[in-house]
Amino acid sequence: MLSIGQVGWIEKEIPEIGPYDALCRPIALAPCTSDIHTVYSGAIGDRHNMILGHEAVGEVVKVGNLVKDFKVNDKVLVSAITPDWNSLAAQESYAMHSGGMLGGWKFSNFKDGVFAEYFHVNDADGNLAHLPEGMDLGAACMISDMVPTGFCGVELADINFGDNVAVIGIGPVGLMAVAAAAIRGAANIYAVGSRQNCIELAKEFGATEIINYKQGDIVSQILEKTNGQGVDRVVVAGGNNDTFEQAIKILKPGGKIGNVNYLGEGDYIKIPRVEWGCGMGHKQIVGGLMPGGRLRSEKLARLVQTGRIHPEKMITHVFHGLDKVEDALMLMKNKPKDLIKPLVLID
Amino acid sequence: MLSIGQVGWIEKEIPEIGPYDALCRPIALAPCTSDIHTVYSGAIGDRHNMILGHEAVGEVVKVGNLVKDFKVNDKVLVSAITPDWNSLAAQESYAMHSGGMLGGWKFSNFKDGVFAEYFHVNDADGNLAHLPEGMDLGAACMISDMVPTGFCGVELADINFGDNVAVIGIGPVGLMAVAAAAIRGAANIYAVGSRQNCIELAKEFGATEIINYKQGDIVSQILEKTNGQGVDRVVVAGGNNDTFEQAIKILKPGGKIGNVNYLGEGDYIKIPRVEWGCGMGHKQIVGGLMPGGRLRSEKLARLVQTGRIHPEKMITHVFHGLDKVEDALMLMKNKPKDLIKPLVLID
Amino acid sequence: MLSIGQVGWIEKEIPEIGPYDALCRPIALAPCTSDIHTVYSGAIGDRHNMILGHEAVGEVVKVGNLVKDFKVNDKVLVSAITPDWNSLAAQESYAMHSGGMLGGWKFSNFKDGVFAEYFHVNDADGNLAHLPEGMDLGAACMISDMVPTGFCGVELADINFGDNVAVIGIGPVGLMAVAAAAIRGAANIYAVGSRQNCIELAKEFGATEIINYKQGDIVSQILEKTNGQGVDRVVVAGGNNDTFEQAIKILKPGGKIGNVNYLGEGDYIKIPRVEWGCGMGHKQIVGGLMPGGRLRSEKLARLVQTGRIHPEKMITHVFHGLDKVEDALMLMKNKPKDLIKPLVLID
Amino acid sequence: MLSIGQVGWIEKEIPEIGPYDALCRPIALAPCTSDIHTVYSGAIGDRHNMILGHEAVGEVVKVGNLVKDFKVNDKVLVSAITPDWNSLAAQESYAMHSGGMLGGWKFSNFKDGVFAEYFHVNDADGNLAHLPEGMDLGAACMISDMVPTGFCGVELADINFGDNVAVIGIGPVGLMAVAAAAIRGAANIYAVGSRQNCIELAKEFGATEIINYKQGDIVSQILEKTNGQGVDRVVVAGGNNDTFEQAIKILKPGGKIGNVNYLGEGDYIKIPRVEWGCGMGHKQIVGGLMPGGRLRSEKLARLVQTGRIHPEKMITHVFHGLDKVEDALMLMKNKPKDLIKPLVLID
Repeated sequence: MLSIGQVGWIEKEIPEIGPYDALCRPIALAPCTSDIHTVYSGAIGDRHNMILGHEAVGEVVKVGNLVKDFKVNDKVLVSAITPDWNSLAAQESYAMHSGGMLGGWKFSNFKDGVFAEYFHVNDADGNLAHLPEGMDLGAACMISDMVPTGFCGVELADINFGDNVAVIGIGPVGLMAVAAAAIRGAANIYAVGSRQNCIELAKEFGATEIINYKQGDIVSQILEKTNGQGVDRVVVAGGNNDTFEQAIKILKPGGKIGNVNYLGEGDYIKIPRVEWGCGMGHKQIVGGLMPGGRLRSEKLARLVQTGRIHPEKMITHVFHGLDKVEDALMLMKNKPKDLIKPLVLID
Repeated sequence: MLSIGQVGWIEKEIPEIGPYDALCRPIALAPCTSDIHTVYSGAIGDRHNMILGHEAVGEVVKVGNLVKDFKVNDKVLVSAITPDWNSLAAQESYAMHSGGMLGGWKFSNFKDGVFAEYFHVNDADGNLAHLPEGMDLGAACMISDMVPTGFCGVELADINFGDNVAVIGIGPVGLMAVAAAAIRGAANIYAVGSRQNCIELAKEFGATEIINYKQGDIVSQILEKTNGQGVDRVVVAGGNNDTFEQAIKILKPGGKIGNVNYLGEGDYIKIPRVEWGCGMGHKQIVGGLMPGGRLRSEKLARLVQTGRIHPEKMITHVFHGLDKVEDALMLMKNKPKDLIKPLVLID
Repeated sequence: MLSIGQVGWIEKEIPEIGPYDALCRPIALAPCTSDIHTVYSGAIGDRHNMILGHEAVGEVVKVGNLVKDFKVNDKVLVSAITPDWNSLAAQESYAMHSGGMLGGWKFSNFKDGVFAEYFHVNDADGNLAHLPEGMDLGAACMISDMVPTGFCGVELADINFGDNVAVIGIGPVGLMAVAAAAIRGAANIYAVGSRQNCIELAKEFGATEIINYKQGDIVSQILEKTNGQGVDRVVVAGGNNDTFEQAIKILKPGGKIGNVNYLGEGDYIKIPRVEWGCGMGHKQIVGGLMPGGRLRSEKLARLVQTGRIHPEKMITHVFHGLDKVEDALMLMKNKPKDLIKPLVLID
Repeated sequence: MLSIGQVGWIEKEIPEIGPYDALCRPIALAPCTSDIHTVYSGAIGDRHNMILGHEAVGEVVKVGNLVKDFKVNDKVLVSAITPDWNSLAAQESYAMHSGGMLGGWKFSNFKDGVFAEYFHVNDADGNLAHLPEGMDLGAACMISDMVPTGFCGVELADINFGDNVAVIGIGPVGLMAVAAAAIRGAANIYAVGSRQNCIELAKEFGATEIINYKQGDIVSQILEKTNGQGVDRVVVAGGNNDTFEQAIKILKPGGKIGNVNYLGEGDYIKIPRVEWGCGMGHKQIVGGLMPGGRLRSEKLARLVQTGRIHPEKMITHVFHGLDKVEDALMLMKNKPKDLIKPLVLID
């Protein structure tokens, strides 16, 4: 990223590393919709000559002298969110907000991202995880961001056994939220979306019904399917500020909304007063940045290894070579019909 | 209440009771601001010839044949919220929404209230509690609504040891929220209000600082006092839809807002996008109707008995005789400077 | 049951019902190991002329005049645990202990069970659930006890995404715990058992490894498979008092043990001091009776309907006619090699 | 400590510090009963030439080059438990078990303690906190261990508004547990102990009744006072392995036990089977090492600053000079009647 609206390659020095840090080179990369938002909508504000990218599998090239568990040549999962683990925010269980709200999101935000020959990882012992032997690189790359973000939505919504759940949005994050809801104990999963390939994968991942917003108001569709009761939980993985009005309307008293969709525009999220029980309906609203870090990556990797989830099924396009990152990014921008997620393999 | 804007006395039949119900006569009554809203703003919609009132201490006059724990002449605490305990909503831990959102709020909403010679209590074993010997009738009457509602705000906000807390609103509910925060482990309690007698009681109940909105924007006042960090928790016990914008702005990432203020007007509560972390700041918002019922009344009564709280200090005016309820109601409407809460003793 | 060690048929009056109760006739029944314990080990103390059985699908024959949601001829799921929902214990979220510890367990404990022409259900609206159209009667009958008990173990152990879990015991309850762990987000599930047909079903339900106690100490087997780390969670669904020593030893600091195994003998459960961190290892131990009631039955039924779980696969033997209950019970007592769970269909 | 049973002064090199560490000198110190156990009972195993002590207020003498928030001459609260915050255990919310169970307890366990001219603090930004201006040094020194340990017991027991609570043991940790229970919302607090000065302080800190084990079995005393119901919560802050039998017996179904007493002897903690509901009574048992670290110290310091707690009232004896540590330790060993906690001021 050169500036808002402009991408291109840029020469930079290899980053310095501190005693707890690591330098990695990418072996698999994936562009994210938020990279597109960053460049073309300026969602996080203007950035100049910043390297994009936060989804990667890497190989360790160099480690600081106090790094204990990783050494040169180790293949690693890289978390998109790389908190400062010895911060007060981490002690408060909100490491992702270390250094200020959303401060754990460093790659392609406060520092150069992973679409580079080499990238820097702070607190290597806390933010890298060993790539399990034999793991598909597509699945591994999804553990950077798509898997933990989708799973975070389900955790925020706090799904219990037998809950009826709506997942709004079935892009890659929404698809992983569907998969997470299914292995968190949801019964009916109403997945809201319209793209055909995503619909098919949503069903495979556990959605019981597809709610297509092109076929009418999603509120009335979901209320109808639940006999007017609404759902127990809503995961918001797409849409915009207005989505919360729908989410409140389809939610039962005592229900919970977990948002993991980055809201890039507008001044206010609007909560409809009456359907929110005049402030007394026990309809909980929370949105959060996914927790990054090693433990999370390891736990999600185990779910891939034990076959509980199959994030690699989201990879629809594969490129080879670092120079193809730009093609992958353009694909993400243009969103052809058959795209869910592209992957770039290096070497 | 005869209709919106009109109050007066009305003759009605003594209510019938079912096998699990009780008939009581009031021995202490208190009018609530929400009675005023009901009559004069029509907050809950039009009601005709409905008896007002939901704060009472009573004496049992008659019990259904399946009531086990109460008998005629027992003196009782009466919960303002009287859920159906054998409802599905109760099994979901949201008894207060039995029979639909806010459905546990029956008195002076779906059925006649307690400002009468006799009033009906559904599920007597579940919704009455024995008046502890020697308990002050003012304190006892506050256990109907003011105490549990204030405490509910603190529970929803989930205060932990050493948290810095803002309590917005220091009417009777807000005052009880201050008292609850202090015995829930809060450190600094920033109480937002302006009435002098309430300020004094807020300090006595545990507020460490008073934030007077007449002396400037409460957001900047609280941010200044917290070195720009904001607070860990916010209890909303007053204000209106716009209060939530302030609450979000003074809240740390990972913080929680607990609302117990009935929002009677306007279409939307507006959540400021940027300060809400673009949907990812882990700032949780929840509002709820207090849980009613016997267990709650018993537990709160114990806190009065052990001297942990002193709700009787909120009683600023005492009347004698059922016919004085109208005076007490008018006092509540006109809100003289020295009023916090009036009490009407009968007999 | 005539007395400890003796079973036989007995003539009794048709039970009376109260205004909130129902009378049902069974359409499917299953004997439970605990019926065997009750009769042959006297696990719950002596009982005379008590009708056994607490797993049933029924048809409503009669309802009390205050029952709202069920009518004669309705086919119903019957919870083995039938709490008093308008008890204080229910308000405390422990309805299963209404009327004293374990007091929600009434069938074949404090009152006659379901192995009869007619059986009595207290609080019909709270303890029955409509049999979903087309549901397999074997699956439906397992919703009485085997499914909710296994699921309760997983809830008590509080399994999170990616946890490594041990399930000790793979009888019907343990098998359902394995299934529950898999749809609660467990990664590796180490299922401890030895019977071949149970092993196969455990794998099908989601176990990743079988730990056979006949092939060596389960502690060292599990520690070896987890590189000495131990597991995050343990569900105890079999064994005896000594099982807890093993459970503590295989558990990580911060781990949790959820027990749903009825401990019928011995004076003490022994917790090994050193491995429990000298009292400071944050290894939580809890055991609980499953929550009964309608909501739970409905939520579990949804999981069957959406294909998330397949409890009907546990039914290895099917009998026809009420008179075959004794055969089914004897089968349960003798435990032939190919048995997991028998079912008796009536009509 | 020279070896088990022997104390004396020893000359050692000033410790080296890493880039995130600090070197401090003590300005206030307190010996802990666990120092006595370490030396005289060999509770944590043999240690040779290890410096004792883990309760201190200090002054920073030197900081590593990556320490951000502390500089030379800063006065600091020092946590007795100093976890590795960038460990996996910390990401699991169990930092106190970083490096293995109880591994966060380093001072006078795995490394030299604070009874020295200089002591080493790992991860200074994570484990020190600024001494608030004007704070009493006795109160400040209690924030190292006595306050957080007592509070931890209350957190583990998960006390809610209006709960009846037993606190077993009213030494300094138990006294702080009483204080914590009172500001966590407990109603009746039954404090179990016998020493007169502790009894008086327990009452001042919020105990409603004293249960003296010298005046009869504590189980029957507490059951009598609770009408046979037992208590909602038990905090164990004293006693031994057998205390858990009593704790289970006085606990209601659905109750919780939080242990913070170090269990130094015996093979097993014994849980009485029948009173534990045959494994199904929902009586939760958990014991844990207090969470150390800066956030905790800061939050507890706020409670002192706002006057919610008064740990300085436990200081019964004050010494001056580092050389008086041995006298203070001997006092702790001999436990004269008027002792609760000694303090040694340096400079």
